[in-house]
Amino acid sequence: MKKTKKSIVLVSGGLDSAVTAAIAALTTEPAFLHVNYGQRTERRELKAFERLAAYYKVRRTLVADIRHLSKIGCSALTDLQIQVPKGRLYRKNIPVTYVPFRNAHILSIATAWAEAINASEIYIGAVEEDSSGYPDCREEFFKAFEKAVRLGTATKRPIKIKTPLIHRRKSWIVKTGLRLKAPLHLTWSCYKESRLACGACDSCLLRLRGFKEAGVEDPIPYKKLKQGEAR
Amino acid sequence: MKKTKKSIVLVSGGLDSAVTAAIAALTTEPAFLHVNYGQRTERRELKAFERLAAYYKVRRTLVADIRHLSKIGCSALTDLQIQVPKGRLYRKNIPVTYVPFRNAHILSIATAWAEAINASEIYIGAVEEDSSGYPDCREEFFKAFEKAVRLGTATKRPIKIKTPLIHRRKSWIVKTGLRLKAPLHLTWSCYKESRLACGACDSCLLRLRGFKEAGVEDPIPYKKLKQGEAR
Repeated sequence: MKKTKKSIVLVSGGLDSAVTAAIAALTTEPAFLHVNYGQRTERRELKAFERLAAYYKVRRTLVADIRHLSKIGCSALTDLQIQVPKGRLYRKNIPVTYVPFRNAHILSIATAWAEAINASEIYIGAVEEDSSGYPDCREEFFKAFEKAVRLGTATKRPIKIKTPLIHRRKSWIVKTGLRLKAPLHLTWSCYKESRLACGACDSCLLRLRGFKEAGVEDPIPYKKLKQGEAR
Repeated sequence: MKKTKKSIVLVSGGLDSAVTAAIAALTTEPAFLHVNYGQRTERRELKAFERLAAYYKVRRTLVADIRHLSKIGCSALTDLQIQVPKGRLYRKNIPVTYVPFRNAHILSIATAWAEAINASEIYIGAVEEDSSGYPDCREEFFKAFEKAVRLGTATKRPIKIKTPLIHRRKSWIVKTGLRLKAPLHLTWSCYKESRLACGACDSCLLRLRGFKEAGVEDPIPYKKLKQGEAR
């Protein structure tokens, strides 16, 4: 059956975005958007993105580069011709990839693209629980942004922002992914390595716990632990 | 008197942004943000931006490049690795520089920067009357975006979006600029030329009408009209 409704899905290449894509594909023809912002495993994530796009036979993909924005939040500000007085940085130990208000940047790109290709829904796999309290990962932010989208675009039908995972646990996400036959073996979550997942970073731990709670084995390869090392 | 409140001012280099900067400078220490998106007179506008920043002795300036986004709305989509099926473009005669939802992109950058340098106000010199009905130039869009900013940022004080010109006429803007000693001679509005303003494009006509209604002469140089040519 040909789907008449088009959507934009934000696909990082990780578990959550793959399951979000599977949910979006149930009722819409999805277009995949990926954003680079200088993350360490950027190329590995892009590979996962491309594999997911191929798996879902996605007709439209867009890779946008906002790595210049990631510099706003840290000491590399000078790259953008900004003069940063010493001792005035926003936070001491801010991660290099952190961008304040990042989801607004990503959703703005998604909205512009949705308007251009006449898509009526934007899917983002944000999970409140995992987001360490980032304000732009909360449901109320997405609701407020959706209103700004409605008032700031010229489409006939308002563009909706869909957050199907926002209040879900990782185990629910894993189970739903399996039920919808999402290609979890093609996803990549590790922030450290690019061949075998490290199994030790926050992102790996969150993912592994989700699979454990769901009672299934994670299909991606992990580094072997050394003797005495705990996962 | 040292101003304790910091602001971000969106400075294109044109008349409206110069007057907006003058208004912002009354109560805040402004930081100037300029955005390039491949407009024809990009370099001339940047020059005006730099001169305005020098005039106001602005400590912080930021030039962000979103020209990749301007391609979302037109046929150059392919630059972003997107496959565009024939006959599917959003509009037939869309201007090259048009970006759907553009002000959301610009305000997202401004918000991220405001959060990073602890600025509490963002000034944008949008004028509803001049905006040919662009939805993202209307007051209600800015109000909705301000709410998204409040919910999507981690600042103690909410960041306000200020639109002091939103319901003003060009003549009011010119008069206010003169009253606040804004350096109108350093601004650039023409979309066509970069040495002498053409005096014939929409932007020039709007500007010239504003000066005429205000009863003062525009201080920037215009091309001489040929015999029989009407301005």
